[in-house]
Amino acid sequence: MPNELVTFGEAMVRLSPPSFQRLEQTTSLDVKVGGAELNVAVTAQRLGLQTAYVTRLTENPLGRMVVNKAREHGVDTSHVLWTKDDRVGLYFTEFGASPRPNTVLYDRRDAAIARIAPGMIDWRAVFAEARWFHTSGITPALSASAAAATIEAVKAAKRAGLKVSIDLNYRARLWSQDQARAVMTEIMSDTDVLITTEEDTERVFGITGKDYEDVARTLAKRFGLEAVTITLRETPSVWRNTWGAIVYAGGEIHRSPILDLELVDRVGAGDSFAGGFVFGYLKGGPAMGVRYGVAVSALKQTNPGDLCWATLDEVERTLNDGSLRIVR
Amino acid sequence: MPNELVTFGEAMVRLSPPSFQRLEQTTSLDVKVGGAELNVAVTAQRLGLQTAYVTRLTENPLGRMVVNKAREHGVDTSHVLWTKDDRVGLYFTEFGASPRPNTVLYDRRDAAIARIAPGMIDWRAVFAEARWFHTSGITPALSASAAAATIEAVKAAKRAGLKVSIDLNYRARLWSQDQARAVMTEIMSDTDVLITTEEDTERVFGITGKDYEDVARTLAKRFGLEAVTITLRETPSVWRNTWGAIVYAGGEIHRSPILDLELVDRVGAGDSFAGGFVFGYLKGGPAMGVRYGVAVSALKQTNPGDLCWATLDEVERTLNDGSLRIVR
Amino acid sequence: MPNELVTFGEAMVRLSPPSFQRLEQTTSLDVKVGGAELNVAVTAQRLGLQTAYVTRLTENPLGRMVVNKAREHGVDTSHVLWTKDDRVGLYFTEFGASPRPNTVLYDRRDAAIARIAPGMIDWRAVFAEARWFHTSGITPALSASAAAATIEAVKAAKRAGLKVSIDLNYRARLWSQDQARAVMTEIMSDTDVLITTEEDTERVFGITGKDYEDVARTLAKRFGLEAVTITLRETPSVWRNTWGAIVYAGGEIHRSPILDLELVDRVGAGDSFAGGFVFGYLKGGPAMGVRYGVAVSALKQTNPGDLCWATLDEVERTLNDGSLRIVR
Amino acid sequence: MPNELVTFGEAMVRLSPPSFQRLEQTTSLDVKVGGAELNVAVTAQRLGLQTAYVTRLTENPLGRMVVNKAREHGVDTSHVLWTKDDRVGLYFTEFGASPRPNTVLYDRRDAAIARIAPGMIDWRAVFAEARWFHTSGITPALSASAAAATIEAVKAAKRAGLKVSIDLNYRARLWSQDQARAVMTEIMSDTDVLITTEEDTERVFGITGKDYEDVARTLAKRFGLEAVTITLRETPSVWRNTWGAIVYAGGEIHRSPILDLELVDRVGAGDSFAGGFVFGYLKGGPAMGVRYGVAVSALKQTNPGDLCWATLDEVERTLNDGSLRIVR
Amino acid sequence: MPNELVTFGEAMVRLSPPSFQRLEQTTSLDVKVGGAELNVAVTAQRLGLQTAYVTRLTENPLGRMVVNKAREHGVDTSHVLWTKDDRVGLYFTEFGASPRPNTVLYDRRDAAIARIAPGMIDWRAVFAEARWFHTSGITPALSASAAAATIEAVKAAKRAGLKVSIDLNYRARLWSQDQARAVMTEIMSDTDVLITTEEDTERVFGITGKDYEDVARTLAKRFGLEAVTITLRETPSVWRNTWGAIVYAGGEIHRSPILDLELVDRVGAGDSFAGGFVFGYLKGGPAMGVRYGVAVSALKQTNPGDLCWATLDEVERTLNDGSLRIVR
Amino acid sequence: MPNELVTFGEAMVRLSPPSFQRLEQTTSLDVKVGGAELNVAVTAQRLGLQTAYVTRLTENPLGRMVVNKAREHGVDTSHVLWTKDDRVGLYFTEFGASPRPNTVLYDRRDAAIARIAPGMIDWRAVFAEARWFHTSGITPALSASAAAATIEAVKAAKRAGLKVSIDLNYRARLWSQDQARAVMTEIMSDTDVLITTEEDTERVFGITGKDYEDVARTLAKRFGLEAVTITLRETPSVWRNTWGAIVYAGGEIHRSPILDLELVDRVGAGDSFAGGFVFGYLKGGPAMGVRYGVAVSALKQTNPGDLCWATLDEVERTLNDGSLRIVR
Repeated sequence: MPNELVTFGEAMVRLSPPSFQRLEQTTSLDVKVGGAELNVAVTAQRLGLQTAYVTRLTENPLGRMVVNKAREHGVDTSHVLWTKDDRVGLYFTEFGASPRPNTVLYDRRDAAIARIAPGMIDWRAVFAEARWFHTSGITPALSASAAAATIEAVKAAKRAGLKVSIDLNYRARLWSQDQARAVMTEIMSDTDVLITTEEDTERVFGITGKDYEDVARTLAKRFGLEAVTITLRETPSVWRNTWGAIVYAGGEIHRSPILDLELVDRVGAGDSFAGGFVFGYLKGGPAMGVRYGVAVSALKQTNPGDLCWATLDEVERTLNDGSLRIVR
Repeated sequence: MPNELVTFGEAMVRLSPPSFQRLEQTTSLDVKVGGAELNVAVTAQRLGLQTAYVTRLTENPLGRMVVNKAREHGVDTSHVLWTKDDRVGLYFTEFGASPRPNTVLYDRRDAAIARIAPGMIDWRAVFAEARWFHTSGITPALSASAAAATIEAVKAAKRAGLKVSIDLNYRARLWSQDQARAVMTEIMSDTDVLITTEEDTERVFGITGKDYEDVARTLAKRFGLEAVTITLRETPSVWRNTWGAIVYAGGEIHRSPILDLELVDRVGAGDSFAGGFVFGYLKGGPAMGVRYGVAVSALKQTNPGDLCWATLDEVERTLNDGSLRIVR
Repeated sequence: MPNELVTFGEAMVRLSPPSFQRLEQTTSLDVKVGGAELNVAVTAQRLGLQTAYVTRLTENPLGRMVVNKAREHGVDTSHVLWTKDDRVGLYFTEFGASPRPNTVLYDRRDAAIARIAPGMIDWRAVFAEARWFHTSGITPALSASAAAATIEAVKAAKRAGLKVSIDLNYRARLWSQDQARAVMTEIMSDTDVLITTEEDTERVFGITGKDYEDVARTLAKRFGLEAVTITLRETPSVWRNTWGAIVYAGGEIHRSPILDLELVDRVGAGDSFAGGFVFGYLKGGPAMGVRYGVAVSALKQTNPGDLCWATLDEVERTLNDGSLRIVR
Repeated sequence: MPNELVTFGEAMVRLSPPSFQRLEQTTSLDVKVGGAELNVAVTAQRLGLQTAYVTRLTENPLGRMVVNKAREHGVDTSHVLWTKDDRVGLYFTEFGASPRPNTVLYDRRDAAIARIAPGMIDWRAVFAEARWFHTSGITPALSASAAAATIEAVKAAKRAGLKVSIDLNYRARLWSQDQARAVMTEIMSDTDVLITTEEDTERVFGITGKDYEDVARTLAKRFGLEAVTITLRETPSVWRNTWGAIVYAGGEIHRSPILDLELVDRVGAGDSFAGGFVFGYLKGGPAMGVRYGVAVSALKQTNPGDLCWATLDEVERTLNDGSLRIVR
Repeated sequence: MPNELVTFGEAMVRLSPPSFQRLEQTTSLDVKVGGAELNVAVTAQRLGLQTAYVTRLTENPLGRMVVNKAREHGVDTSHVLWTKDDRVGLYFTEFGASPRPNTVLYDRRDAAIARIAPGMIDWRAVFAEARWFHTSGITPALSASAAAATIEAVKAAKRAGLKVSIDLNYRARLWSQDQARAVMTEIMSDTDVLITTEEDTERVFGITGKDYEDVARTLAKRFGLEAVTITLRETPSVWRNTWGAIVYAGGEIHRSPILDLELVDRVGAGDSFAGGFVFGYLKGGPAMGVRYGVAVSALKQTNPGDLCWATLDEVERTLNDGSLRIVR
Repeated sequence: MPNELVTFGEAMVRLSPPSFQRLEQTTSLDVKVGGAELNVAVTAQRLGLQTAYVTRLTENPLGRMVVNKAREHGVDTSHVLWTKDDRVGLYFTEFGASPRPNTVLYDRRDAAIARIAPGMIDWRAVFAEARWFHTSGITPALSASAAAATIEAVKAAKRAGLKVSIDLNYRARLWSQDQARAVMTEIMSDTDVLITTEEDTERVFGITGKDYEDVARTLAKRFGLEAVTITLRETPSVWRNTWGAIVYAGGEIHRSPILDLELVDRVGAGDSFAGGFVFGYLKGGPAMGVRYGVAVSALKQTNPGDLCWATLDEVERTLNDGSLRIVR
């Protein structure tokens, strides 16, 4: 089966102290794998899109673990670029409780993906028969060569007739707002769908509005986008949030339901939203995109790990039933 | 000491992923033992009733584990029927978080208890000196022979002068509403006390009412019952519920306090209520039954496993004090 | 670097069932170390005060574990008194969920610290160059000789020019209210700063007031104290509390912010408050004391163990920012 | 990349008590996935053969787990047949210590694979471009329809020009020696390579010899086989074994080195041998087959789970170096 | 069913660091229950003797845990004496590896059983219909009143016509050799069967001989014993031992097979031997006693905990088969 | 108390899969801290030398963890150099079983210690009142500036009158044999005591001999050393080794006993030997050095982690008693 969706970016091994322990105090770490575009790929694949994930990885047990976890969900990793050099990035997550927020400590310096450069991936082969390409603002932020490789990928996708979605995902530790603005503006010229938050929009593009719907409209207009979708999170406490999204497309705003969340692991929520959004958008358009995106990413936040373990049935039950009684 | 309460039904080995993991993702499973009538027996035994539990089990490590866990709490298992054939049933529970509900996946096909048949248990010996017999709507649902054996047991209990309580407990995966109605109606003719929920009452007997008190009255009248007790759960989220019960007996409604629950494990709550209800009913009548039933089952929902680990002291402190400060 | 703060009291090995299990049901116990004055020492040391902890311990793996955990945070344990006799005290904590409160079961009989007696510690050496001495109402409650040793320590501290703070910490299982009143009243005569709750104040000194501010004023006046600080906890459920404090000093009341807590482990909260209070008091006076005390002890309650693992940066972020978003 | 090797048979979820506990006493179970032909597929895939695994599975979290674990290693599962019915088989393993042997308790009744029947799998599609087909004596033992389906598969493989290997693997709990002899003799007529032990050869075919080399020659002659390979295990204790193999092919006996093993998990050793043997045979003939088979399966026995986690590099280091010093 | 065997002594909660960690370094402890006479009771009960265990325990979660674990195996605990006072004893075990031996650190001071005194137990009721009474040299070593209570029990057993067995079990930390000699010599006058080691015999009675058979004969003669059994352990390394026993009875020596052991947990081996010996002796005399005693205690040493989890079938397979292959 | 021993080098966070799992397959990692010179410091400190450990670390939870673990054992870390830059090195250890050796995968690139340079540490202050300085061949191998800093440290130690010991510890992944020879030869000119193996001696200095005693003599002569000590390990299997050492000093060879080891964790054995050797050498000269070095490092290899948890008592019992029976 040919790949319908292709995603591209960094994946890392994720290490987390269990049971709300601090990293400094822990004697064991739970091992997971995550990364924005890998998370998107896994969600979309689980819902039913055949998906390929492209990255560059060091050939060692940690690199193999990253690929194993993608394959476990059926994601095609045959286009992953392997190297004997560099290292596999790591990140450490701490789970908080009010008033202590969750934290992420990145240890991604010198990761193989940061050394990616234009020409390394045969994008023409990767994109054969594909329908959609997705990456995020993290990939170009990793290094100058990674920025160039991202632009190459986006342009190749466009040329191959794929729809291009970008999750803006600004990371202040990786680059400045000025650097981000320059690169992301260039990427916007080949982008069809932008996935973002109000805050990132302001930091990267300096765009604000009277409300998030206004921001979405402004973004769509400024960059000539087919759709702009914005996720909405309220954080009354660390363990309880609300979660929803809107999309502006075809001159209209579509809203997801707003879901109450009890949070087990919110890392990767936005990525899972993106994976569900792409799935829904391809199956039924933007309104279905936000609904499926919000439901699948709400479910993802209820179990450990960046990666989504929900099924399409469960997403649809969440949207259609919503009962919280035991399912027997 | 002779047994005061006898319960009869299926017990299984229960396997649960720790830490809110999905079953599909887990690398370990917590092992517990549970089953509606076993849960009742353990609760009643812990509160102070000498209780016997009757079932049919395969002689292997899993079957022994079931009996071990009953004996651990002092429940008499000398009437358990052992076989070299069949298997020990299993069930898998997943712990959810809003908007993902808890799930139970049963793997109980071909369990030894489903092959039970009339004549296998010497009920006369079992019931010697006993005061109360309890089973649930699950036992007859397991197979036609199990239904016949359940009817045999109920009739033998009645004949031996025991009080008979039934927890309606409708399981749609085991039998149709029509099948349930036929069998349970027959069983009702020998029943003294019915433990149920509004929803099960409607599904099995097609009985509804303007409120649950009305339903209780209708049930009592329809089947000539001494008491009908209904548990009441509100589910604003997966981790926070409220919990209470009413009983209709002697022409009166008695209400338990409504307790706020932080849920660690709600599986088996209704069974634990039944165990506490029987204890309270025998010690002080229906009003004490609902109070003790609700308190002990509220406590059960705060620690892992179907089985209750509360003590009588703790139940009484919950009813009389209610402080949530550290007990030193 | 000379020690600025010296604390004195009992430390024990703490054993807790994981995952909300009851002690009776558990098959493993998490091992931590705690004790009121050790908790104070660790918090103050982590925030930046050089601190020494004084106790008496049996020379065996458990005694070494207590000292190891103090040293792990940089606390000076060179004044700990070792013995081949007696034992290391233990306590068992159960983590509850509404309506089941947390419990602590002490097994501290015959611990080495209960056999401490005046003359055993060379307080002059301990207090050289130090600025502050802290102990609690638990230490004198352990035995008559421990009471005498505590009075000796307080007087030596006073004589050496240290500021003396006492956490009233009444423990009904250790002594009667009358016994406590006699000893604590004597200790008050050398005390500068009293840390307490409304409830303990009433039980030990029989002092009540129209509100906690009134109680603080009365205490300050009665015992001629420089400062009286009272912690304030609301307990709507076992997992959600609010937490704050006030201090009366120099004729004025200073109030901390009231923080919403999601509780992972509230044992030791008051001690951690005391450690933060002493730090803040020494750095900036009573108003800073309550603010830093409340913030650091709020953070402590969000991870497992009596001991605090927060940093000064995190305390200040909690006071100044308060956002609950992921910190990357 | 087209599949080079296809394997066919049952896979189950495997549950094991940790730390040498008995099943009866355990409170948690480690979860793995295994099954003879799945184990073969994973080993061959890890060494470098593109492999497809064919089975029939129930669509639920346990069935998905089986496929996930195959995919994790890169095995193609696109030909797996899914059903809403039946169940996923389980087995429980206990790890022993002298004089207590390891045990396996199967709970495989009514598994989906036992209901497989001829015509369900499109073998022509499965075998397109493939070079080798492997199954074992367990698959036809599962049920009469499974036996018919196995014969169908073997004949289809032969017709499609694949080499056919059979691991004799007699399971006394599944069928009698007479039943096994009838079916396995029929299968032998389409078999090229037989993998077996002296004991199974005697039980299924009644063939004995003066030594295992003699047995191999007799088997090759009796069934006109291209190669017969026999694994050799000595069991001086539960934790220490020796492990080797011989192959008879082209009129010659080739011997692997005999390796000393410290056993972490010997379940699946023979399957891993088969996977390594097929890989070696395809790359370099029978002598390479036994060497690679023994080395890779020796490594498998040193880590938990039926599935192999060794790499080709490690296999070659084991054969060529053999040092037991730390590899840095 | 009336009790056939009665045992009497101390049981404690046992805490062990997992995975060969030192107690000083561990962050969790595995929780088990053990005690010489409890271990005997559980082994005998599992093999098929109805057994009662008598002790004195504090009514708290730890005391209940002790009784729960006895009941789990079917042991009758209805004669256990409960108190609100004192404490439940603890011991800490470390698992070694050559050249580091296993260690046990006792924390049993002030345990409820040490406060037992003559007259507290109604031995006449306990011994009704029983056939055998067993205790060890640990029970009288706990305190002077415990020694008196032990002598009372032994005399009552004798009077009631029970056979009395004593495991000499000298504990140097509890009493001196002189104290032990005085008390144990008195107890010997009512003893039928002595279970011991060469070393304990020398330390308590000053008896040596040219070999252990000679020692057994001397003991039998000196104290007029019906049987003397001596366990034999060789300790070439911490993880590998050999294990056997002899019994002298009726003028003859009977020898068990000598078994090679891979040790998971050797604590309680001698107690499990005693349980198996009593079972075998009652079923078939002294020769069967040593054989069953050695086999069941060999199996016990292969899984964690003092308590035995073997079955009669497994004991007989160990004696009759001895194969170390996987049991499927 | 002034520091007697100062060690200098890299420490890292160590991550290990539990239960013999491969790194590629694990879902959790045990967290420890280690590093050659830290291991030396901890061993010496536990035996009774006051020891300081000097390194450069990034100020984050992982850096704090390194220092915490040193302090836990009483090691003085007040001279550690903190930075906001760089990272904390990691390494991953896999525990093997024959024929799979243990492995270590380093991830130490860009660690703070590799950026150390001459002038950063005030060695004069560090060495005040100290008697011994120790480092290894790993420290200068980390980078050119680290090599320069190591030479600076060695010369400063010499100048301050300390005895200097070097563990040759050649790491082929860090530098070539030529690079090592150049730097280590320079360092030898200020070295008093060399700790090495035959293999490293040959690789770094090209020195061989007819046996290890001959090698020790040649080294002592070539570099004018006061003592040369060589550790001796035989590796018949991964879990069973023998372990000993010799020292050449004052024209004589002294030999330790050769100990049989059951290995729980052999990483850091040589470092623990060095710590014990320095302790013994300072207390009683070279013969005591090898004896204490071998005994303490044998004990270290029996529990998890690089760091030693033995006590002086245990070391002396190992040397003087050697019994493998349970220590109660």
